[in-house]
Amino acid sequence: MTKIAVAKGDGIGPEIMSAVLKIFDAAKLPLDYEFVEMGKWVFDKGYSNGMTPQAQQTIETLGVLFKGPMETPKGKGVKSVNVTARKTWNTYANKRVFQTLKGVDTVFSKAGIPVDITVVRENIEDTYGGIEHMLTHDVALSRRFITRPKDYPELKSDDIIIDDLCMKLVTRPDLFDVIVLTNLQGDIVSDLCAGLVGGLGFAPSANIGDHICIFEAVHGTAPDIAGKNIANPTALLLSGISMLRHMGLMESAAIIENALLYTLEQGIHTGDFGDRSKPSLNTTAYAEAIINNFGKIPERGAKPMLADMAATPTLFRLEKNSMMESSETENEKIVGVDFFIESNEQPVVIANKCLRHAGVKFKLINLSNRGTQVWPTGSVYTNLVNQYNVRFESIDDMPLNQQDILGLYISLSGNFKICSSELLNMWGDKRAYSLAQGQ
Amino acid sequence: MTKIAVAKGDGIGPEIMSAVLKIFDAAKLPLDYEFVEMGKWVFDKGYSNGMTPQAQQTIETLGVLFKGPMETPKGKGVKSVNVTARKTWNTYANKRVFQTLKGVDTVFSKAGIPVDITVVRENIEDTYGGIEHMLTHDVALSRRFITRPKDYPELKSDDIIIDDLCMKLVTRPDLFDVIVLTNLQGDIVSDLCAGLVGGLGFAPSANIGDHICIFEAVHGTAPDIAGKNIANPTALLLSGISMLRHMGLMESAAIIENALLYTLEQGIHTGDFGDRSKPSLNTTAYAEAIINNFGKIPERGAKPMLADMAATPTLFRLEKNSMMESSETENEKIVGVDFFIESNEQPVVIANKCLRHAGVKFKLINLSNRGTQVWPTGSVYTNLVNQYNVRFESIDDMPLNQQDILGLYISLSGNFKICSSELLNMWGDKRAYSLAQGQ
Repeated sequence: MTKIAVAKGDGIGPEIMSAVLKIFDAAKLPLDYEFVEMGKWVFDKGYSNGMTPQAQQTIETLGVLFKGPMETPKGKGVKSVNVTARKTWNTYANKRVFQTLKGVDTVFSKAGIPVDITVVRENIEDTYGGIEHMLTHDVALSRRFITRPKDYPELKSDDIIIDDLCMKLVTRPDLFDVIVLTNLQGDIVSDLCAGLVGGLGFAPSANIGDHICIFEAVHGTAPDIAGKNIANPTALLLSGISMLRHMGLMESAAIIENALLYTLEQGIHTGDFGDRSKPSLNTTAYAEAIINNFGKIPERGAKPMLADMAATPTLFRLEKNSMMESSETENEKIVGVDFFIESNEQPVVIANKCLRHAGVKFKLINLSNRGTQVWPTGSVYTNLVNQYNVRFESIDDMPLNQQDILGLYISLSGNFKICSSELLNMWGDKRAYSLAQGQ
Repeated sequence: MTKIAVAKGDGIGPEIMSAVLKIFDAAKLPLDYEFVEMGKWVFDKGYSNGMTPQAQQTIETLGVLFKGPMETPKGKGVKSVNVTARKTWNTYANKRVFQTLKGVDTVFSKAGIPVDITVVRENIEDTYGGIEHMLTHDVALSRRFITRPKDYPELKSDDIIIDDLCMKLVTRPDLFDVIVLTNLQGDIVSDLCAGLVGGLGFAPSANIGDHICIFEAVHGTAPDIAGKNIANPTALLLSGISMLRHMGLMESAAIIENALLYTLEQGIHTGDFGDRSKPSLNTTAYAEAIINNFGKIPERGAKPMLADMAATPTLFRLEKNSMMESSETENEKIVGVDFFIESNEQPVVIANKCLRHAGVKFKLINLSNRGTQVWPTGSVYTNLVNQYNVRFESIDDMPLNQQDILGLYISLSGNFKICSSELLNMWGDKRAYSLAQGQ
């Protein structure tokens, strides 16, 4: 028997988890469950990350977490427990499979356009770092960071810009097999794709890391129908099936998924979808219908009965954090600095003050406001906010050190409140920073 | 006669502009055109912002720019002339109207789901500020900034999260009338909506500012078919019609738009859309077909013949940049600083070094890596990049000044390369910065 951690979730979480585990039990899976404390009620007990230390330890020991939907208390400044779990355990790849299901009608299924798309979403970075500051009382900053991805030259792929992708997904979703996206874009596109196949009730989600993996339903907790035994467990079941495959239980996964597809093809449904002329089943009865169809093969999309496989072992312990660092052979040098200052003065007034601080090592390159250059050239038709970027570079790209930057910082702070700073770096002869708009 | 600036654009730009101006001429519009130099060929002449100073001056004098699609040279580090124009002239509102057109079949039109959505996209801010730095050789940072929006309490609106919006747009686009979005999300959603009505060939775009407005086709320059007189001018024509309304020429706008809709209802089309069993027209013939239908009323979506209106005057001159600043009554104070340092050491090693620099005014709050807390608590399963956020706050929220921050900066720079810094501010008793994930 393999033991996994299970968190039932909030709202409808416990009842859909119970339905899915009933299906798993009927399939006689070689699994033991250790239930852990995560979710809204754990925030309410005073754990500011939404999980108990015991839950964290159990999950880190077992390596697999199966979880229901969870709610994050609003207006308390706490962060989503779902996101905390994904980030803390470095489940860097969010894998979601979206498939047309017979019995789940959509605009696209009616038009005869089949959808079978796997979205892989980077799960840690981007604006979801959640590093946010008010620079002035008018200007909020979110730091969007992206690290160098690993190369997979053996994989063939095409590039597409996100806006074009979304346009094509609503016209020809059948053109796409696998889409790999950064975090924010992946968030948007995966819900868009969920819409193509009938909504979040049919969209499984797996968060894959090197040590810990999380399989979860990503729909809401639906507190309005919680406890009524009418919620749709399909997304959680599909997530569970993907967990079984991850653990190498290929045969049981195929039996359960085929039974689900067969059940949907029969027109069996919970109250939230399907043919309204047929009565809907409650959560328990829907699960039982699936169990009764174990061994049945659906007309469309039947999964092959593969032999069980050895699972990637997750039962190792890390003693320290892993550092991901690429090699860089070019020489690094500091060649300037951007200061973000608070001011409501005109560009030329600020520039004249800044010029006095440049000294013998720096030259004042430009001033920009919201990314648009406003000095030395610009337009009076560029509206301003009270936050300027003042860029200084070294004369002739001479390498600078931190003391040079600090000297300028000290000098300039006599005139301005400096809200933020960024070094300007070069690697070899490549500038590692962007120009301002209009520069 | 009113004079407007016209930029023909690159690729298919000149021929579709010529088709649209032919339609305008036939409608005897009271317009004069001054053609200006913008686009790829202007970059090639050495103007790094893609427009000549003469073009800029003309546009700033006339206040209205009608432009074809433009290309930005790739790999030269220059910025898009389209974006430069929008930002330099503070055309802060991008308005795009997406309507089901009879004769332009889509999955949604076939399903009988009508689309009539106006997207208003903020046009200046967000990650489109383009303020980007490599902090280490592995970590890139883009600054996403958002300023305080003006309130319009008289407007009734609902909030929706972007992922949920996209899911609903592909299932029930008929639920939406007007969608107001930040820049990046607006970029994605407006192309998604273009897909709902048949693509960018049918999607007009207006960029509205207080002084200068830009009306443009946002599709590509299609260099592969340039000069062949087969391009589809519909999007540019719709953008031009929206310009006519902006200028108060309501009656001519209605005559031309009704003629366009009538023409589409007749099954007349260029080669890129429509009923393939009917021969397609070339660009010129398509424009002539529309001219020949002046006075005709389409079956669906006919525009009412409103009387011409006085246009908002744009012929004023600004002498200096406008500063947008809200009032803030709460006291501002500095209560700490985030330093972003380069290091590939373990969290506890870094924390021990940082603790020595805290002195009598600061306490070390935490270390985070990609937004996830890794000290004082955290998980060894959080993978690291060589860029840490080290947060210091003042003891008991005592107000700090820039000299305090600089003292700490100087001290800490003895141990680390500090790539970036952000002040931690409070207004009144409100912290103006986010917690780390897991904090």
